[in-house]
Parts: sequence; structure tokens; C-alpha cells
Amino acid sequence: MRAALLTDYRQDFSVETVPDPLITDPNDVIVRVGAAGFCRTDIHLWDGQFDAMQKGAGVDLPFVCGHESAGWVQEVGAGVTHVAVGDAVLLHPLATCGYCKACRAGDDMHCTAGVFPGVLAPGGFAEYVKTNARAIVPLTGGLTPVQVAPLGDAGLTAYRAVRKALPLAVPGTRTVVLGAGGLGHIGIQALRALSQTEIIVVDRNTEALEHARGWGADHLVLAKDDRSHVAEVLELTHGAGAEVVIDYVGEGGAQQDGVELLGANGVDFLVGYGGTLEVEILGQALFPETSFVGNICGNYNELVELVALAARGVVKLTTTTFPLEGVNDALHALDEGRLIGRGILVPNES
Amino acid sequence: MRAALLTDYRQDFSVETVPDPLITDPNDVIVRVGAAGFCRTDIHLWDGQFDAMQKGAGVDLPFVCGHESAGWVQEVGAGVTHVAVGDAVLLHPLATCGYCKACRAGDDMHCTAGVFPGVLAPGGFAEYVKTNARAIVPLTGGLTPVQVAPLGDAGLTAYRAVRKALPLAVPGTRTVVLGAGGLGHIGIQALRALSQTEIIVVDRNTEALEHARGWGADHLVLAKDDRSHVAEVLELTHGAGAEVVIDYVGEGGAQQDGVELLGANGVDFLVGYGGTLEVEILGQALFPETSFVGNICGNYNELVELVALAARGVVKLTTTTFPLEGVNDALHALDEGRLIGRGILVPNES
Amino acid sequence: MRAALLTDYRQDFSVETVPDPLITDPNDVIVRVGAAGFCRTDIHLWDGQFDAMQKGAGVDLPFVCGHESAGWVQEVGAGVTHVAVGDAVLLHPLATCGYCKACRAGDDMHCTAGVFPGVLAPGGFAEYVKTNARAIVPLTGGLTPVQVAPLGDAGLTAYRAVRKALPLAVPGTRTVVLGAGGLGHIGIQALRALSQTEIIVVDRNTEALEHARGWGADHLVLAKDDRSHVAEVLELTHGAGAEVVIDYVGEGGAQQDGVELLGANGVDFLVGYGGTLEVEILGQALFPETSFVGNICGNYNELVELVALAARGVVKLTTTTFPLEGVNDALHALDEGRLIGRGILVPNES
Amino acid sequence: MRAALLTDYRQDFSVETVPDPLITDPNDVIVRVGAAGFCRTDIHLWDGQFDAMQKGAGVDLPFVCGHESAGWVQEVGAGVTHVAVGDAVLLHPLATCGYCKACRAGDDMHCTAGVFPGVLAPGGFAEYVKTNARAIVPLTGGLTPVQVAPLGDAGLTAYRAVRKALPLAVPGTRTVVLGAGGLGHIGIQALRALSQTEIIVVDRNTEALEHARGWGADHLVLAKDDRSHVAEVLELTHGAGAEVVIDYVGEGGAQQDGVELLGANGVDFLVGYGGTLEVEILGQALFPETSFVGNICGNYNELVELVALAARGVVKLTTTTFPLEGVNDALHALDEGRLIGRGILVPNES
Ligand SMILES: [Zn+2]
Ligand SMILES: [Zn+2]
Ligand SMILES: [Zn+2]
Ligand SMILES: [Zn+2]
Ligand SMILES: [Zn+2]
Ligand SMILES: [Zn+2]
Ligand SMILES: [Zn+2]
Ligand SMILES: [Zn+2]
Ligand SMILES: [Zn+2]
Ligand SMILES: [Zn+2]
Repeated sequence: MRAALLTDYRQDFSVETVPDPLITDPNDVIVRVGAAGFCRTDIHLWDGQFDAMQKGAGVDLPFVCGHESAGWVQEVGAGVTHVAVGDAVLLHPLATCGYCKACRAGDDMHCTAGVFPGVLAPGGFAEYVKTNARAIVPLTGGLTPVQVAPLGDAGLTAYRAVRKALPLAVPGTRTVVLGAGGLGHIGIQALRALSQTEIIVVDRNTEALEHARGWGADHLVLAKDDRSHVAEVLELTHGAGAEVVIDYVGEGGAQQDGVELLGANGVDFLVGYGGTLEVEILGQALFPETSFVGNICGNYNELVELVALAARGVVKLTTTTFPLEGVNDALHALDEGRLIGRGILVPNES
Repeated sequence: MRAALLTDYRQDFSVETVPDPLITDPNDVIVRVGAAGFCRTDIHLWDGQFDAMQKGAGVDLPFVCGHESAGWVQEVGAGVTHVAVGDAVLLHPLATCGYCKACRAGDDMHCTAGVFPGVLAPGGFAEYVKTNARAIVPLTGGLTPVQVAPLGDAGLTAYRAVRKALPLAVPGTRTVVLGAGGLGHIGIQALRALSQTEIIVVDRNTEALEHARGWGADHLVLAKDDRSHVAEVLELTHGAGAEVVIDYVGEGGAQQDGVELLGANGVDFLVGYGGTLEVEILGQALFPETSFVGNICGNYNELVELVALAARGVVKLTTTTFPLEGVNDALHALDEGRLIGRGILVPNES
Repeated sequence: MRAALLTDYRQDFSVETVPDPLITDPNDVIVRVGAAGFCRTDIHLWDGQFDAMQKGAGVDLPFVCGHESAGWVQEVGAGVTHVAVGDAVLLHPLATCGYCKACRAGDDMHCTAGVFPGVLAPGGFAEYVKTNARAIVPLTGGLTPVQVAPLGDAGLTAYRAVRKALPLAVPGTRTVVLGAGGLGHIGIQALRALSQTEIIVVDRNTEALEHARGWGADHLVLAKDDRSHVAEVLELTHGAGAEVVIDYVGEGGAQQDGVELLGANGVDFLVGYGGTLEVEILGQALFPETSFVGNICGNYNELVELVALAARGVVKLTTTTFPLEGVNDALHALDEGRLIGRGILVPNES
Repeated sequence: MRAALLTDYRQDFSVETVPDPLITDPNDVIVRVGAAGFCRTDIHLWDGQFDAMQKGAGVDLPFVCGHESAGWVQEVGAGVTHVAVGDAVLLHPLATCGYCKACRAGDDMHCTAGVFPGVLAPGGFAEYVKTNARAIVPLTGGLTPVQVAPLGDAGLTAYRAVRKALPLAVPGTRTVVLGAGGLGHIGIQALRALSQTEIIVVDRNTEALEHARGWGADHLVLAKDDRSHVAEVLELTHGAGAEVVIDYVGEGGAQQDGVELLGANGVDFLVGYGGTLEVEILGQALFPETSFVGNICGNYNELVELVALAARGVVKLTTTTFPLEGVNDALHALDEGRLIGRGILVPNES
């Protein structure tokens, strides 16, 4: 098959012919890739930031990136009966074991024996990708691979934090969303579709803020270097602080905005990363009784829910597609901030 | 009435005659004090650490400390019908308003109009203390003021964290308790009475650890300066980390033990204070999907529950009593670490 | 003041001059009534169905009905400081004590010492009504008494069931709403505003069903005497049954529709009444692991949330107003099914 | 292998040699049976009560009963890597698929593609039983098959209801347990180990009540034909009714005791069966806001928890063992009420 290979860090991908993946376990599934999201994590892989983690997992260059894949089932293992060749499917990013305590609890991302195509195994920047039967989400409502591929990782991560926040984000509350980029894009739409909390969006980018209004934000606040936006947001909460913060940034000081913006019993859902969170225990955690909650990608059933939201038309992705051979165009557009919406590689048209 | 007055910071208390408190609001209640816990917070008041907070609230020296009071109802305001003179009662530390959103939600400590006797109003180191009808917890099961006074603050704080942890501390899990002192003393007993989680207690003091076994700990680990106890505890979790940490220390680096001891989905309940919590977002909060949850004193109904645990005999306080005139003995014994269990002033014997 | 008096069961109300209510407790509040919803419960009072309950509570004819009141604060007791004369307010139906275990838990309707104006004390079919400070909900966002009065009881009851259902009604689920009348009217709008569950509305009235589409229903099913609608609804769930049923009917056999429409882990929220629920334990409760959950009017904070939904414009009431003297027009219109939307008495215009 | 065959309804079992089970799916596991609980459900199978259900599932006589099995792994399919031959194991009763929505949510008993050995497939009254890898619970803490086999079904069913009740059964509450037989035996011990709720046990049998005290009951009430026990229990709740009822009887009118014993917000957990539950909606479900919650056998992780409770020694089974050839002794002893504790067949000693 044709695949985009990462052969040297920080060099262009090389599209070459490599062997097709093979069924080796009775639960394996091979998917003909119809769409593979090009994610910031792929830039981190291309950068070499995952070099140690990959080598620790016995993985080396050349490597096939792509952990946000959708397409059509091509072949299934002998133990797979609930998925049929030709089905249009979206892949949960982790091929989980189904046996460990986490899998038993529906807590897929903490599977102790999962396989992670596109990060620790060959991924979706290719004609075919191998996963397993537990990762296969059927596409319903006429959704196509190109419409949904990035939901599998970026969307699911954004959604999981929203889902955890919903019980707190009741009518009359305020929810501050830090970051109106790739994750905020989905998170704000999902939060709007599932709540009537007053949504206050903070971003450094005026254009992103304008889009946020269309996604359902109630208030838009421009983040500034002097951090005056913190006082602006507190003003919008009448000085009480917010019930919920969802931090899709997690670095460059934004993580501390979250700490300062919480009101009594407030919860700061951490999604973006790169920084260190510092919390003065007495004043910032005990007196206000705040919580700081880590989030990773959602589980299988949450991805099914997110697909249902997409099928209802209440969560929509903005995308730019590239043929597999255009992988380097996608890379450079994303890396240089020129990309409109999510970049998606299309190895097979249908 | 006789009262122990704090007249100068870091000077001995002076027991003097001062005017009795008066009913000024229809919901007021005056309690004849039968027991007033001497808490580390009283040392902080005596230190002057609350000077700014008190002055901000219009409070100044001389001041009557004591925020862990129990006794008998002496007088009630015109609006109080559910409490009778002579009732044996324990005081919730905050006299709440009953009207704000927090009070409506049973979230007493976040009342936006509460009065805090012993910290921001005259307290229980006196023959009488004024609170309001919403703070009055009836003593049942023959419990006496001396047996329960410290439950009102120290006990309730310890218990609230345990109560939040219980849904996670299911059979087969491990719960690490950092600190087997005044709060750990109650927390460990309550956790044992209400769960079968494997309790791992960490403390720097071997004697405290020995007591902890009697309170129901399964494993005892001595905290050391070289932090080798962190690896010891992880070993007890078979390397997986703990489902729950309850941090009754919160300073001196113990707060970082909590961060490192959590396993997947682990939650660190913060109770002790003094330090700053530092969490590397990606590795310590997102990948393991951990949470860090602040705790303050519990609410009224939680205090009723804690009294029920005491009445069943499954939570017991170790105490040393002092007459009101012995207030400075209590102070010095606590400050110098000579106190066995909780110090309690007894202004009225019955 | 002028008041509509129920002097004999099943006779027209008589509008007469009676003494104004007086402040007798420090927490009392008197409200100048701007709107009083005319509810089916008022018909039951008029019928005499509450005769025994009223007499048990020491209440007798002539009686002032009206338990869905809104207006402006006229006078407050000496203990009331957070409410000011002239404030536009909506009344929670129960004037709760603030001291019992239920009040402490924010579970207002189970207050063991509450006063219920309009049912067990004089109500809002009058120029003034007496309640207490704990029942006063400020009107925000420019809402007027006429726009919100019925939210206090009918709306709040409908909303509470929706709120309990929300954690189950995640994207991809189906929620069956039985009854698109007065309660369904609010319930369906609230469910639509706060979820993306597929809403299936069942009613015997085609006109009500048509309205339901505008409120956000996804599917409309006409209830028939031959109960064929049960199979129709199951078909819409692809035979699996619904995750949630909200039964706003509760009589005439509709309550058994709920039992039969539930899928695995399904929950039937009971709101409407009059009938007896029969559940064959093994087949209808154990194998499918279903639950049957009673609902009564919501609590104070839930009413604040519902007012927030009204202020956002996502829950709207259809109403017909009557002057106080038109009370019998409202009665007959409701009793004869001629009323469009909710009937509201307007004792004071502003 | 040797197996106890049910060849004709209501006739003695016949122990004969039949073919060994074979691995036919990559996830299959064959277990050498060390203990097989003889359950009342086996009497119902022997009675022919499951005849229609079995025939609907393509199963017919002669049949091998036994759905509470434990033993040692004999053989595993090609896809099974986390279980090793020789492991001591307890079987979750359902061999679940791992792919359906219920399995994904950790809701094993609602798997839409599960296999149920001993009810709808050959069971554990034999030397070997076939299940799959998802049903295998490792035995830890030196527990033996004979000590735990009935935990797999009877124990797990009793425990699941307790586990659902725990958040309600906080200190100071009352929990009524109806039935101190096979399920109550485990349920009461688990409830005692995990809560300090006041446990009120109701049974028609004085001997069972005496045992219940040893399991941790606080109050014992003898059920009588005149139903006077209902008033006795209400008296123990000071007239308020219970926060929790766990009904391990579910027939003969006991199910209505549950309805009448609930207080405000009370929840009745239905476990026992045979009867129909009747709830007068307004008075018995709406005013008190009660809930009626069906329960079926617990999930895999709950069984792991129950095994942990057994390993800690806080849940103990009373058992009587029989060799496989003694199957009819077990049958008659149970059927005639002569059995002390749970009957267990032991096809293999080790
Ligand atoms: Zn990604
Ligand atoms: Zn796994
Ligand atoms: Zn204290
Ligand atoms: Zn100090
Ligand atoms: Zn308050
Ligand atoms: Zn009404
Ligand atoms: Zn009350
Ligand atoms: Zn059984
Ligand atoms: Zn039978
Ligand atoms: Zn399944």
C-alpha cells in the first residue's frame, strides 16, 4: 500500500509503497482509510518529541503517523462477528484489550494492554490501517469518513471534558472556556448543544473569538499579555468566579488563569498541556473548595455519543482535505498556522 | 461571664470577666459552653496569622477564640422554635444564613453571609458563646459535650474528605492517608468504619503510626527526608499507584507525595495546608487522568452523620481536658507537641 | 384586600374583601400578587378533593386558592434582610423552615415544617399573599410576574423530572415523554434545551402533538385506546426500549405504557398521577434492571435554574390572563378544556 | 467427563459420562470445576420453569445445570493471553461479548450477546465447564473454589443491590433488609462492612434472624401474617420511614412491605422476585418521592470487589459440600428446606 512515512525527524514525509498490514490476532480489523486527521500530535511526532516513548515501546523510524482515522472495513479476524467488510467506520484511537479493570469499567483510555495506532503502532497516513474490533465505531446517519475523522481524538478529548462538566454547568452558571482552537471548536459546540450555562470564551486570537460566537459562546474575551482578561472574566461572573473552567490551552500561563477564575466549588477541567499547574493549597483549593481535574481522550461510548451529535448536526467540523500525497502540504500549513480548520488526509476517496 | 481573652499576639491568654453575649437577631442561640476544642487554628490566631483577615471583618483584640464548641442551649431568639433551652448540643462552626445559593444547596461552608464564632466573632473559650439556630446539632445517644466538641471542626474537616473519597474507595482499592495526627485520627477511623479499602498510612512519627493500626490502617509507612517512602507506598500498590490519597499534611513536600502516589483516575483530596501544589499537567494530570480536590469543613448534615458515627462508637476521640483557667496550659502543651490527643477547655462542667 | 374565595365546593368563587395578611414571624414576607397561575390542583381544591387534608391541617372554607404566585415584595419581617420591598419575585410553592434535615440538604419539598400557601394556607388568588423569606426567588433578566408565575409549581415539577433524567439522556438515547399538556409543555422545552436525546412525545391529542414539534420533539406518536402506540414507540427505539420515560400523565393506563416502554437500565420518571403503577418484578424490573422514580415539585435552586432558562428564552409559557374578578372564567375555561395555555389571574397589574 | 444431567423435569439428576467441552472460539476458556453452587434457580430449572426460555434459546434436555462455578483453568482459546492454565478462578455467570454498548459501559449483565452457562448453555454440575475469557475472575488471597463459588451469582446479586444503596445509607440512616436467607446472608454482611447505617432485618424465620445479628444487624423484626411487623419497623424509624429498603424476598406480599416502609426520598431495591409491585402513584411515589429500583446480578468488577471482601474475611459463606454424585442429596436438601447454608457440588477436589 501507499503510506506517508516519517523517515527523519523534522524532514518532509515520504510517500512510498510499503507492505499491507496483516491480520495476526483473531480480534484484528483492517480499515481502508477514507480520512486521517492531521493533528498537532503528528507535529510532535515529526518533531521527535515522542522518540523516547516510541523506542521504549519498540517502535522506530520510518513510522506511519495518523491516529484520527475513519474509513471502511477491509478485513476482519476470525473472532470478529459484529463488524462487516465494507462498513463505514470511525476508529477509537486506542485498540483496547477488553479484559483489564479499566476496560471492564468502560474506561478505555486506561486500558493496560492497549495498542495505539499512529503513535505506538503504524497509523492512518496510509491506504490501510490495522486496529482491533473494540476500536470500531459504526458511522450512522449518512456521515462520511471525512466529516468525522478528527472526532476520534481531538473531538473526543474536547467532548470528554465537556461531558464531565455538564452536571456542574446547570442553568444560571458560568463556564469559562480557555482556547477557541481545534479542541475549543468542538468543545464549545458540544457545551452549547447540551447546556444553557453562560459560555465565556477566552482566546488570544480575535478571529477565533468571532468563530466562537457562531458556536454558541455568550461572551468573548481577548486574552492579553498583561492578564487583564482575568479581571474582565471575573467581572462577567459578578466577582463570584466561574462554576466551571475548561482549559484547552494548558500552557503559557493560561493554566493559572483557570486557577484564578474559579468560584466556590469551581472545577477546572485540564485538557491542554505543556505547562505546570501551581495551586496555593489554602487560598486556592481549600477555602474555595475547588477541584482540578485531568482529562484524556474519551472512551468508546463517548465517541458514539459524539458521532450522534455530529449526525444531529449540532457539532460540525471545519476541515481542509489533502490527498495522501499532499501530506507535506498539510504539515506545513498546520505548522505555519495557515490551516483553516482541521487538516485531513484522504488516502482513499470511497 | 468568664472568658479567655487573647489580648496580645504570642502572649498568654488572660481569663477575665466580660459581658455575656446577647440575643440580637430572632435566629440567635446562646450556648453555655461545656467543651471547647483547642485547635491548631487557635495557635494561628494567637500567632497573629489571622490579624489581617480579622481586621478586614471589623474584629480586633482582645478576642475570644474557640471554634469547636459544645454545651447546652441557654437562650434562643424569638424566631427559634426547634431548639429548646437545656438541649445538649454541638455547634457547626459556621452560623449560616439559610438564604444564599450555597445554603440552599446544603453547602454550608460556602454561605456568603455566615458568621464564624471563634475566628471572626467571639468564640467558645468562655462560659457562653453566641451562634444561630442553623448551627445547632442536637447531641444524641447520650454523647456529652467533652466527647464531641472537636468533631465540629477538625473532625468534620477530616470526615468530609473521607466522605467524598468513599465512592472511589471500593473494595480492592488502596487509599493512602498522609498524616496520622489530629485530622488523620478521625479520618482513618471514619474510612475504616465506612469502607474496606486497603488503608496505607504515611507519617513521619512512629508513635502516630502505631496508633493508626488501632484505628484500622492496613499498612504503615514511615515518611523520611529522602522521600524513599514514596517508592515504598507505590510498592504496596504493586506499582499501579493509589485510587485515593487523602492529604492531611499539605506542606513540607507531603503535598507532592500525593501527586506522585496517584494511579490512573486517582484522586488526591487536599485537606492539610501551608504548601503549594505543583502538577506537571501532561504527565501528572492528563495521562493518568488524576484529580486534585480541595476540602474545607463539612456541612451541617455531615456533622450530624459524624455524631452518629461517634454515637455508634466507631469514631472515638482521644482528649485531654483543661478548665477554662487552664487555657494557657492547653496552649503550651499543643504548641510544644506535648499534648496527648485533642486539648479541650471545659468552661462549665454540666 | 380583594380575594377570590372558595366558599362551597363546586360553586363559583366569590370575590370579596377580606383582611390583609399580616407579618407574624420574623421571616415572613408579604407579596403583592402580580400573577397567580390557575392550576389543575385548584380544580381539585374546588372539587373538595383536598378537604380531608385541609381539615387535618386546621384549614377550612372559605379558602383562598393559588399556589403559583409572582409579584412584588410588599412587606418583610424583622429577620429578613436579603429581600427588599418592591423586588419583583416568583414564589417557590413551599415556605420552608430552613432547619430540618431536608432543608439542610436542599431538598425543600420534604421540609417537615413547611407552609403551603394556596393549599394549606391562604394563597395567591388575592391582592396579597403571605409566604416566608426562604420562598422568595428574585426575577432577573426583566422577566415579569405574568411570564413566570406557573413556573413556580407546574413548571418546577416538570423541570425536576427532566433534571433527574438528564444524566441518562445522553446523545444517542431516546426519551419518551408521555403527555404534551401543561407539564409536558415545559418539560419538553427544558429537555430540548439541555440535551440531544431523541425526544418521542406521546399524547392522545393531535393538536398537543403539533405544538410538541415546535418545543423540540423529534417524534410524535398519537396515543390510542387499543394501545397500539406502545408498539409504535418501541419501533422508534429499534425494539430496544427507551433509556428514559417521563410520565406526565400517570393515570388511565398511561402509567403502564411507561413500564412497557423501558429498555435495559431504563428509568421511568413518574410525575402525573391518579393511577396505580403495577410492575411484574422479575420480568419488568429485575431482568431489564429498570427503575421507577417518583417526582414532586423541585427545590428553590431548581426554580432559580428554571427562571434562568426562561430568561434565556429557551423555555416559554403560553398563557391566557384574567383579572381577579375573572377567576370563574378561568375555572370554567380550564375545567371545560377551553383554555389555551396556562390561565393566569392578575390581581395587580404592576 | 462426568456430569449431572437433568433428563426429565422433577426427576432426580442422573450422573453420566458425556463429551468434554471443546474450545470453539478464540476467546473460550474451559475450567475444571472445583465448586458449583446449588442455587434455587437450579430448582426452577429442575421444575421446568425455564423450559420455554431454554427452548427459545435452542437448548433442550438433557441439560447440565450450575451457574455458580469456580475451579482451575484447564484450557484457553488462541486469543486468550491474560489467563493461564492452572489459575484458580471464579466465574462471572455471564460470558459477555465485550463489544456491545452494555459491555462497553461495564454493564455486563445487559450484554446483548452473552452466553449463560448453567441456564442457557451447559453449566458447572460437571467436571468441566466452558465459558469465555471475559468471565474469568482470578482468585486472590488464597481463596479456594469452595469458599467462593456462590459469590458468582447469589452473592453478586446481593452485593449489587447493597452497592447501589451505599450512597444513601450514610451514618444516621436506617436500612431495612427484607429476607435473611441466601441473599440476605451476603447482603447484610456486605452492608455492615461498608456502612454504619442502622440495619433492620425482617424475616419470617426466627433462626435466620438470630444469624442476622452475627452478620451485623442492629434490629431484628419477625415478619407475621398480620403484617404487624410493618408498624414495628416504622416505629424503629421513629415514624419517618426508612431511607433504604433492600427486598430480598419480592413475593408473598413482602414487596408491599417495602413500599410502605420507605420514608421521604426512600429507595426500595428490588432483588427477590415472584410477585408484582403495586405503587399508588400520588401517595406512595410522588408525595414521598420514592424510587423502586430493579437489580440483577452484578458486573465483573463488582465480583472482583466481592472477592476482595471475602479475602478480607468480612463476607463469609456458610456452605455444605456434596460430591458430584451427591447432586440429588443437594437438590432434596434445598427443596425440603433442610440445607444449612449454601449447597456446593465438588466435581474435582483440587
Ligand atoms: Zn490528535
Ligand atoms: Zn484493557
Ligand atoms: Zn479547629
Ligand atoms: Zn502557627
Ligand atoms: Zn448562606
Ligand atoms: Zn400547580
Ligand atoms: Zn425544613
Ligand atoms: Zn444462582
Ligand atoms: Zn420452584
Ligand atoms: Zn456485550
